[in-house]
Amino acid sequence: MANVRSTQELLKSFEDFMKGLDWSKPPHSLYVPVEYILTLGGKRIRPISLLHISQILDGNTEASMHAACGLELFHNFSLIHDDIMDQSELRRSKATVHKKYGLNAAILSGDVMMIESMYYISQAEKRSGKTGLMDLFVQTAREVCEGQAMDMDFEDRSELNYAEYLEMIRLKTAVLLAFGFKAAAIVSDQMDSADLLYDLGIYTGLAFQLEDDWLDFYAEEPAFGKIKGGDILNAKKSGLILELMEELNDYEKSEFINWYQQERDDTIRISKMTGYFNQYAIQEKFKQRIFTFQKKAFDCIDQSKLNDDQKKKLIEFITGIFGRKI
Amino acid sequence: MANVRSTQELLKSFEDFMKGLDWSKPPHSLYVPVEYILTLGGKRIRPISLLHISQILDGNTEASMHAACGLELFHNFSLIHDDIMDQSELRRSKATVHKKYGLNAAILSGDVMMIESMYYISQAEKRSGKTGLMDLFVQTAREVCEGQAMDMDFEDRSELNYAEYLEMIRLKTAVLLAFGFKAAAIVSDQMDSADLLYDLGIYTGLAFQLEDDWLDFYAEEPAFGKIKGGDILNAKKSGLILELMEELNDYEKSEFINWYQQERDDTIRISKMTGYFNQYAIQEKFKQRIFTFQKKAFDCIDQSKLNDDQKKKLIEFITGIFGRKI
Repeated sequence: MANVRSTQELLKSFEDFMKGLDWSKPPHSLYVPVEYILTLGGKRIRPISLLHISQILDGNTEASMHAACGLELFHNFSLIHDDIMDQSELRRSKATVHKKYGLNAAILSGDVMMIESMYYISQAEKRSGKTGLMDLFVQTAREVCEGQAMDMDFEDRSELNYAEYLEMIRLKTAVLLAFGFKAAAIVSDQMDSADLLYDLGIYTGLAFQLEDDWLDFYAEEPAFGKIKGGDILNAKKSGLILELMEELNDYEKSEFINWYQQERDDTIRISKMTGYFNQYAIQEKFKQRIFTFQKKAFDCIDQSKLNDDQKKKLIEFITGIFGRKI
Repeated sequence: MANVRSTQELLKSFEDFMKGLDWSKPPHSLYVPVEYILTLGGKRIRPISLLHISQILDGNTEASMHAACGLELFHNFSLIHDDIMDQSELRRSKATVHKKYGLNAAILSGDVMMIESMYYISQAEKRSGKTGLMDLFVQTAREVCEGQAMDMDFEDRSELNYAEYLEMIRLKTAVLLAFGFKAAAIVSDQMDSADLLYDLGIYTGLAFQLEDDWLDFYAEEPAFGKIKGGDILNAKKSGLILELMEELNDYEKSEFINWYQQERDDTIRISKMTGYFNQYAIQEKFKQRIFTFQKKAFDCIDQSKLNDDQKKKLIEFITGIFGRKI
């Protein structure tokens, strides 16, 4: 319980810090959309992970807060531009930035958010008195773009293997979480454990994204703003579909792909998909994949040079992240 | 003549450095458009200014080259995104990135170029052993976005005053040149003169942009890839038009604006515009504005703490930039 409270306190101080940023300055056409996306909310899992782990490792508080802010700004920049590319109309049940303010404002406001993210990371580096944060962030930012490019490339391909999908979600999702984990190690001067914390972030991110794929179809109560089975209804690539692909022979695969791309009836889509998943025990196999990444995550903690108390708190925190109903 | 040769040598070594960057890595959908825009050429006035001034001030060569590379990458990122926003189909007589590779690739390749620009600036800061480059760059990048936002805001307004136009071109154009000028001072450890070199860059940039407006209408041979009078034909905001506005009373102004926005015949546009400009002696008044900025630029050199030899070489270099036929 102490752990949960602590996370809420960190979230509160993070939100206070973010509210302190001034987006009321001109030109308003540039900064109003920035404020809009930031107030749409979200779990803030990336900055909170950074702040929480930094707290466990007794890291520099001010540097951590600036790094967390940069991380969240970058994440939101990527949401704005991804929503344009995916032609998404809704984000968290509200209009996406390009739907609300137009394409040009969405491009430019995204650009300036990315620039602001670099500002806060560079401030974090200065305040920590350690080098390496900016280099790590630039590498991470580059990889996020590479992940998004892979994701768009995949849209044009009917077939995809599981390894490619994992690499895409590693780049598009996991590296940003891993940046936060390693940044916490850097501002805490725990360089001995920095690379293992990075790997911990990657495995946590991969497990988290696969859980998302799982919950999209199997959650009893879909998350706020999401439609149950949305991935399947929109013929999106999803880990569950790729798990199924691994089980099908070439003939079955092409038959499935044809159906998956052409079927327009939502009820038929969901019921036939459930049939496929049951037939090939996809639910169990996919859970096993998630557990394997969770196991690898805990192994990273075990192998790190952190002290026993720090390891215990880190295990508690990661367990909390993995605590969704799968 | 030695000065001219030297600029060409710097250009050669800059192009060699840029050719050394690897854009053949995957995902190709992300990096091929980056290589494309970089090979469209251009005067490279920003990086060459940085390299030339750094050479005059005996600055760190490696740091200068990395800063120049970051500057050019950022400039090209802004071209890609601006071309989307302006719906431009041609850049240097070739297809713009979004026309050639599509909107999504143009957004994302622009994003990754901006990230790469931050990488090279951060490398420059490290190699120079001086602080301040990254902060200055982030501030500059933010201002370029603000300038582009102002430019787009202006599209929706029929009236505009000269001061607003100047502020817009200061942000959209001059600050990037000024970054290069001040960066040269930073990597040369000439901090005493850094702010005056920044101002020199601003005045040079303003004079340069106003010259561009002038040459667009009055050049005997329009520059490669440009149409003579293109600004006027496309009803763009231009310094010449705003100079004219300063001369008209409210009635004449609204009459002019109506005509300017509605006239479709190119020959009539050009001839009537020429008539307006002659009637109000706009050509002379506008030249005077440009000369005033050039004078301010030379004053900055004069007031700086550089030695006489450095001042002489800097005056030669700036005179070369101002050497176009106006």
